[in-house]
Amino acid sequence: MAQTPQTETLSGREAGPFIVRRLMKTVGNPEISVRLWDGSEFDVTDRPSAGTLEFCDRRALLRLLTSPSVGFGECYTDGLLEVHGDFLAFMNAVTRAITSKRAGSYHRNRLCSRLHALRQNTPLRATRNARHHYDLDNDFYRLWLDERMVYTCAYFDKKDATLAEAQLAKLDHVCRKIDLQPGMEVIEAGCGWGALALHMAEHYGARVRAYNVSRAQVEWARARAIERGLDDRVRFELADYRNIEGRCDRFVSVGMLEHVGLANYRVLGDIVNRVLSPNGLALVHTIGRSHPRVADAWIRKYIFPGGHIPSLGEMAELFEPNRFTVLDVENLRLHYARTCAAWLRNFEAVSDRVTERFGEAFTRMWRLYLAGASAGFRSGTLQLYQAVFTHGDNNAVPRTRAYMYPEETGAAG
Amino acid sequence: MAQTPQTETLSGREAGPFIVRRLMKTVGNPEISVRLWDGSEFDVTDRPSAGTLEFCDRRALLRLLTSPSVGFGECYTDGLLEVHGDFLAFMNAVTRAITSKRAGSYHRNRLCSRLHALRQNTPLRATRNARHHYDLDNDFYRLWLDERMVYTCAYFDKKDATLAEAQLAKLDHVCRKIDLQPGMEVIEAGCGWGALALHMAEHYGARVRAYNVSRAQVEWARARAIERGLDDRVRFELADYRNIEGRCDRFVSVGMLEHVGLANYRVLGDIVNRVLSPNGLALVHTIGRSHPRVADAWIRKYIFPGGHIPSLGEMAELFEPNRFTVLDVENLRLHYARTCAAWLRNFEAVSDRVTERFGEAFTRMWRLYLAGASAGFRSGTLQLYQAVFTHGDNNAVPRTRAYMYPEETGAAG
Repeated sequence: MAQTPQTETLSGREAGPFIVRRLMKTVGNPEISVRLWDGSEFDVTDRPSAGTLEFCDRRALLRLLTSPSVGFGECYTDGLLEVHGDFLAFMNAVTRAITSKRAGSYHRNRLCSRLHALRQNTPLRATRNARHHYDLDNDFYRLWLDERMVYTCAYFDKKDATLAEAQLAKLDHVCRKIDLQPGMEVIEAGCGWGALALHMAEHYGARVRAYNVSRAQVEWARARAIERGLDDRVRFELADYRNIEGRCDRFVSVGMLEHVGLANYRVLGDIVNRVLSPNGLALVHTIGRSHPRVADAWIRKYIFPGGHIPSLGEMAELFEPNRFTVLDVENLRLHYARTCAAWLRNFEAVSDRVTERFGEAFTRMWRLYLAGASAGFRSGTLQLYQAVFTHGDNNAVPRTRAYMYPEETGAAG
Repeated sequence: MAQTPQTETLSGREAGPFIVRRLMKTVGNPEISVRLWDGSEFDVTDRPSAGTLEFCDRRALLRLLTSPSVGFGECYTDGLLEVHGDFLAFMNAVTRAITSKRAGSYHRNRLCSRLHALRQNTPLRATRNARHHYDLDNDFYRLWLDERMVYTCAYFDKKDATLAEAQLAKLDHVCRKIDLQPGMEVIEAGCGWGALALHMAEHYGARVRAYNVSRAQVEWARARAIERGLDDRVRFELADYRNIEGRCDRFVSVGMLEHVGLANYRVLGDIVNRVLSPNGLALVHTIGRSHPRVADAWIRKYIFPGGHIPSLGEMAELFEPNRFTVLDVENLRLHYARTCAAWLRNFEAVSDRVTERFGEAFTRMWRLYLAGASAGFRSGTLQLYQAVFTHGDNNAVPRTRAYMYPEETGAAG
């Protein structure tokens, strides 16, 4: 059918495959197969297929043509599209194809990203956006996260580490990078369910104030602090990062910058500048990009409203106006691909229970989100940056990275 | 005298100290003393003085008022200004004061930096600029560089390393960061006197093509290659980086980006994108800044014409248009402060011979440059970034930094 000249009039029966082939070409010809509503099936390439995309309804084709990202997400969620075979392998193939195809002008993308950032995340909107995702239900996240409820990139420093081990390794990796010492005051912006704050207090003797706008998460974290007898050393504040006050020796933010929005990086930088002691160290851990780009439309609509994933150049807005010295940047992209894949496996194992509680569409939406995220990191569409920085005139900084890697014997504490 | 109201008419005798005090205030009141042409002397602050700035001639004051950076450099070079006490301590005090004082608007600085970049470094101009500095005389640099003639930031991984040891450690640090293996093809852009290229061939079994526009440096490097029997594995090309061709497994550039100019980062990025193999790693080592700013006027006029020192955000122009994944950034600012201080000590030890050959003004200019650079790194005005990057879709990258730190036993080879 691909040989059919465009000028010829196509019958309804012939138009489907022709249009699907054109569509596949626009997304870089992924190594998948396609099955149409009439049962006809073909491979997009002559390489082995990673899975089959079924158009259960011809309406799906129209939606994909008019709005590829949101259309695909909505049609998959609603069951107008079905995927047969390993879902993650399928998503990896599609994302790899899209990434290799998508050139686009650097300057145009940078401008779009900046214009998009004009829509500020006010404290009210930020709270609403965070609640959309994180207030969902603690029990839901407990089903598929590790026991510490860490919902950020793990650090697989050992080849065959489990998710729980890799999350513990990440907590230690962060604590070591900021050279955390007993008695230090830490401020954490965006603390999730509190795993890092509790770990810092329990294993490094730090005193932590942790901020979060999600009530469900803060309540959970407070309960864990009491349970573990750490509530004298860890205070969880139900408040936006813009309410951060006081002083600290260490400032950390793991997985919050994605929600801050480009227009507010300077605001966050000003806060760090104000609260961080002269010799203090700060660490920001965030999903990033290799180049500026507006966040995926479906993700913004359904998963993370108000989110922005920055390039390193865009992250400069966080550091440069306050003349912070960036000491160290590490990219953990492939660790996040593996983390999301582990979450997806856990999720699939309990998907019946998720569906029972939230419905089929919800389960399908989350499957797509987790697999899509893993594929994004795998393909290089997404990065994971950990940046350590300090005041521009702080000379009491570690001279080499030896302090981060004291022994190669594993986790501290 | 500082209490004299501005409205009062000042006699010639009184005007000097008054104007000097005003001048000192504009540069943040450094912890120094001032001696005037009439022999009068005062401390700028009530803290201990790091040295005395003598205005040998009242013309120096006028030059400083009209053009602080170039004026200071020219007056010191010409002997209208003299510094008594430890020169580096004096420069550290002045630079620290200027840095703490100099706020300036982030956006204005960024714009100025960008506008300044419109003046492109054409290949012809780049060659002329490089020759201005590097073709000076190999014998001159031999007087005060280490035995390998490394003219970039050293890596003092051991507390009491000598300059030569720290330069060797830097060469190994770079080779390890790019995971250099026997038989690999390396392209080096801006190779100085060839130390890194020769080290890669001799100790890592690499085949290197190294580019440089300085004839004096390339001739020196070629002679060393023959001497050490490495000329079958290292080729030194007398050519601009824009002439780089072929393919490589590793791309390195240590201390060249400072001369490339912001407007050409994308050109350099395009070249790396073209020559680097799909799984290749690249490393760029450059002086940087914590925020955008046009290079110091005196440095541009006398030391490095056409130079630009980028912020991390500006360096994004090198990575982002080609969607490179930045894997690792390390800041070695304080290592460069120490390197320049070591160069200055070596330089002072042979300053009589330098003066004999090049004249007093030349010696004073170079003393100011080396001390000013050390003070710039010490104060946080300057940074030193080492960035490792690769193609956006390369998944054959090291997962952790363990490969960079195989054992803590010192240099390889």
